[in-house]
Amino acid sequence: MTCLNHTRYLAQPHHDTGPAYLLGARHPGARLTARLWVPSSWQPERIVLRQVIDGEPDLSSARPVASSEAGTWWEATIRLVNPVNHYRFLLLTPAAGHPYMWFHAAGLSDHDVPDATDFRVLAADDAPDWVLDAVCYQIFPDRFAARIPPRERIAPAWAQSHHWLDEPPVAGDPSAAAWYGGDLDGITDHLSYLQGLGVNTVYLTPVFPAGSVHRYDSTSFDHVDALLGGDAALARLSEALHRRGMRLLLDLTTNHTGVRHDWFRRAVSDAESAEAGFYSFERHPDRYATWLGVDSMPKLDHRSEAMRDRLLRGMDSVTARWLRPPYSADGWRTDVANMTGRSGMVDLAHQAAADMRATMRQVEAETSRGLWLVAEHGHDASGDLTGTGWHGTMNYHGFTRPLWSWLADPDPADNLSWPGVDNGIPRIPAGPVSRGVRQYAARMPGTCLTHSMNLLGSHDTPRIRTVVGSREAQLVAATALFTAPGVPTVFSGDELGATGRTGEHSRTTMPWSRPPGSAPTDELNDRGAWGPVDRVMLDRYRLLGRLRRELPALRRGGMRWVHAEDDLMVWLRTHPEGDVLVALARAGGTSLDLPLASLPAGAVAAVEAMDGIDITVVGAMDGRLTINATGPGSAIVMLRPGYAPTESARNR
Amino acid sequence: MTCLNHTRYLAQPHHDTGPAYLLGARHPGARLTARLWVPSSWQPERIVLRQVIDGEPDLSSARPVASSEAGTWWEATIRLVNPVNHYRFLLLTPAAGHPYMWFHAAGLSDHDVPDATDFRVLAADDAPDWVLDAVCYQIFPDRFAARIPPRERIAPAWAQSHHWLDEPPVAGDPSAAAWYGGDLDGITDHLSYLQGLGVNTVYLTPVFPAGSVHRYDSTSFDHVDALLGGDAALARLSEALHRRGMRLLLDLTTNHTGVRHDWFRRAVSDAESAEAGFYSFERHPDRYATWLGVDSMPKLDHRSEAMRDRLLRGMDSVTARWLRPPYSADGWRTDVANMTGRSGMVDLAHQAAADMRATMRQVEAETSRGLWLVAEHGHDASGDLTGTGWHGTMNYHGFTRPLWSWLADPDPADNLSWPGVDNGIPRIPAGPVSRGVRQYAARMPGTCLTHSMNLLGSHDTPRIRTVVGSREAQLVAATALFTAPGVPTVFSGDELGATGRTGEHSRTTMPWSRPPGSAPTDELNDRGAWGPVDRVMLDRYRLLGRLRRELPALRRGGMRWVHAEDDLMVWLRTHPEGDVLVALARAGGTSLDLPLASLPAGAVAAVEAMDGIDITVVGAMDGRLTINATGPGSAIVMLRPGYAPTESARNR
Repeated sequence: MTCLNHTRYLAQPHHDTGPAYLLGARHPGARLTARLWVPSSWQPERIVLRQVIDGEPDLSSARPVASSEAGTWWEATIRLVNPVNHYRFLLLTPAAGHPYMWFHAAGLSDHDVPDATDFRVLAADDAPDWVLDAVCYQIFPDRFAARIPPRERIAPAWAQSHHWLDEPPVAGDPSAAAWYGGDLDGITDHLSYLQGLGVNTVYLTPVFPAGSVHRYDSTSFDHVDALLGGDAALARLSEALHRRGMRLLLDLTTNHTGVRHDWFRRAVSDAESAEAGFYSFERHPDRYATWLGVDSMPKLDHRSEAMRDRLLRGMDSVTARWLRPPYSADGWRTDVANMTGRSGMVDLAHQAAADMRATMRQVEAETSRGLWLVAEHGHDASGDLTGTGWHGTMNYHGFTRPLWSWLADPDPADNLSWPGVDNGIPRIPAGPVSRGVRQYAARMPGTCLTHSMNLLGSHDTPRIRTVVGSREAQLVAATALFTAPGVPTVFSGDELGATGRTGEHSRTTMPWSRPPGSAPTDELNDRGAWGPVDRVMLDRYRLLGRLRRELPALRRGGMRWVHAEDDLMVWLRTHPEGDVLVALARAGGTSLDLPLASLPAGAVAAVEAMDGIDITVVGAMDGRLTINATGPGSAIVMLRPGYAPTESARNR
Repeated sequence: MTCLNHTRYLAQPHHDTGPAYLLGARHPGARLTARLWVPSSWQPERIVLRQVIDGEPDLSSARPVASSEAGTWWEATIRLVNPVNHYRFLLLTPAAGHPYMWFHAAGLSDHDVPDATDFRVLAADDAPDWVLDAVCYQIFPDRFAARIPPRERIAPAWAQSHHWLDEPPVAGDPSAAAWYGGDLDGITDHLSYLQGLGVNTVYLTPVFPAGSVHRYDSTSFDHVDALLGGDAALARLSEALHRRGMRLLLDLTTNHTGVRHDWFRRAVSDAESAEAGFYSFERHPDRYATWLGVDSMPKLDHRSEAMRDRLLRGMDSVTARWLRPPYSADGWRTDVANMTGRSGMVDLAHQAAADMRATMRQVEAETSRGLWLVAEHGHDASGDLTGTGWHGTMNYHGFTRPLWSWLADPDPADNLSWPGVDNGIPRIPAGPVSRGVRQYAARMPGTCLTHSMNLLGSHDTPRIRTVVGSREAQLVAATALFTAPGVPTVFSGDELGATGRTGEHSRTTMPWSRPPGSAPTDELNDRGAWGPVDRVMLDRYRLLGRLRRELPALRRGGMRWVHAEDDLMVWLRTHPEGDVLVALARAGGTSLDLPLASLPAGAVAAVEAMDGIDITVVGAMDGRLTINATGPGSAIVMLRPGYAPTESARNR
């Protein structure tokens, strides 16, 4: 099978579940209007909407409502009856040489298809609205900033003290012990810096006491680690964030605890204790289920009602406690959610997600705030993103890895690895990359994608700068991060061009100009632990953060692929207040000429062309937009509001 | 997007979950050997097996174990850890111009893919083994045969009596009332006929009393309709079947009852009764949930524990009763399983399936027999075929409709319809048909496909003869039916060339030479209600039934697509006792030349070429097999046993 390296999506029909193509308030019983744009090359005689209602297909006709030379707008009515409502379109196109085509969220098929890639919309979508506007910043608390001076710190037994600007270990045991002494008040001291970057949400990896700097081997869920400043420091940080209108996301390990966790110590010391049932002992006390065979991380057993009550369920649970005052976190990132509750013939993963979500709804009712629940999932999370449990995931599969595999350094200095696949980071053309991204996004309700974190990297991966090998390529990646559907999530230091070959090596400190413990300032040194600070990069992140804030389409728009060809990718974020076109080039030598009329709201309002991309616009609605790539670069083109008048618009 | 009309699958790697490619007994904790055949054009440097274990990817290397000029055998180890174990292969193929390819059950992808089309194998597969050998025959009891003479019958109030050889009404109310007077003893009288056809399993549409001939509007689940001979006649039929080593499948309506059902009458007369909770009354007693808005079919509410106990759960339930002596049915076909338990924001469909399956396990333990649970599902059942509930489905989506859409009469006399889609029955080329079939089969454990019914039609559809428009095309369809993975299920009368334009119209009687009520004989008249009896067709069904019985590959083999091009389809059923190649042509003018070495066990043992297909074999293992289609036809080519020696074979 030979696969094409390019895909000319613009010639295909389009629909998405964003606000420009799916109109109306969503609630059980609602009737929404679905808009479908069909380029004039198609000319279907008839279009049928196929929904599945109560398990049975239900057909209704789409209606052509407006036409231009470029194409026709059709409309159909979507009924929200079931928890997840899925639908696709049947195009009856005898003129096109094929009796019919199915148009669904993954594209077009000239044969019958399963429902798995139907468009999906939830009837009762209580995912928090604020997440759509979030720009998130990931902090590994040991490495961001410190208010406690080094001389006042007492290293715990497991720790190996490092100087703030030391290069982190690349791997192995030293990496978990390499203690730099960052603390929560250090974060509180730099919120202006984050706001300047456009960040409004801070995600902290675990803050509970543990036996390592990563703290995924917690020893208690009852307190914040004293090394980070304790409970009071978390309350101070939370209050400072909320005062600025910012939000706080914490990190909970629902799959396992550390071997020194209060619960596990009690479980080991007393086989009859409630806590002994929190874990799975094959032989008490020394043989038990673990996280990936690591003895220091015993695996929690979600069959235990008592464990579920303690960790997940109800207002007294760990889940609720840190979301309630005075800590008032705005949500949880759940560690290894993909493994949580899964062990051999037992699969309670969806139960664990439902447990947490139900508890979070209770807290939401109490505190009148929306709370975000994000699942860590390093690979295909679509089976777990049903709309009823996790709101979203860390979108490694649908964003990070595809982008990496397009932008990967063609001549890498290191053999970088990706968790869960062992073929490194191969560089592939835009066509297959776009197909993979599209197929994946097609497998979940849109809200699960918009409520996922998009990342260029994290504390678990190499740094984007190292993956792509150059400032130019990272600038392209940054544009993708801030313009794709999902929450742009910046791993602290990426904005300075920090490098890192492994997750551990990527945990670099921030090079504040004043040493830890002195009066805070947001000024930065010229060098970090990795080398020079890239101020061009910092400025670009600030620009992109501003554009995201200013353009509703980037935050809340639907997604339309326009073109994907070897070195060039173009997509459109669709929104009634104006579509935004995004062009990304990983190399020069490509140009693309788009008739503006084929972008249904085609008049250009403004252009932000960056680095190696030039945008030329000739004419207005009936004109042409030319994208010319002379090198790696990106462009953001703002289009004017104004979709073609449609039946629904006329009737309102 | 232009799609190719042909697909040359033979040039692709192959693996399936049948006994030739996945070796070893399946149980939790088992390690199976997966074989992978890679044609020599591929030459991957490395192949990695990716499984997901406890939610986390797990990688291991495949090993090349034997090579020929045609290709290489690789082997990998599959661990059965979770209820459903899924895996795919990563081919590292820098030489092929692409850094990697994923090979999964739906084919090859040049980008990362979701897990949805991974190969799937159950760790604890208790689906009954006998189903693999089943050839099923569907009987609509009113229309097969009668032992009670017409003069002794008393028509119920709803019935309109018909003479046995009347043409059935095409649609509308008369069709449900058109009473021909078939009964269960009539079936008992013709078991020799069925055995002569190769049939070993009889599936009866409902036998409970009702207000129509189809009996999907039951008035009781406690007794067999007296019109059919009552409880004793069912016991007699069951005993006669079992004496011959044959089996009986009954039909249960779990979604709704008739409006005159005992339960519903009690529910209406007493709002405080237990039965009132069996249904969903919006306003008692006159406004209630129904099947598709049909007032005469009130929908059961699966939130009711009492209803579940009465219908589905435990040894006193309806589910158990008819599987236990003296009725001893061997399984249930569940009516509209796709809608059962689904209503608005409530979705208890999987619970209903699990309820029935658990009860059937209890009966299995009591009676030491395997029982089959088949879900009616008129469209995409893959979301419900997880391996934990229904064993399989009526495979309309994965078999019937694709085959129809390939063989459909190019110049149909009638505008035939297909439930759930309103584009009629379009005729499309073999390439897209094969892609659709393959994508669908890729979405479920193999056992859900082998335990599904394949059908050319049923009491709910037009007859195959009418769909394809000719004897020649039906003969091709019949070969497909008996050679595809899944249980061949013959709708009574198809084997005689009966026609029918709608489901109702298809419910033709069998034209036995003696009138109803006289001493039984299996002799047939020359004409049925539809016109001439097609004895060529009958002989072909008998031949195909015999081949299915004689060739383990047809019953139990894996599935490998070989070629699909416009008018020609070729597949291989893979089995250690000898692969079987199946060629189907819907028209002449195509020929295909296959190197035998590319079919890993390529030596030809025997050829059964039928109608418009000629098979030429030149040479032995290193020879060539030529398929030449001069018109509609089919061929079955038996290959000799003997896969290339492999590591696992050598070690045993």
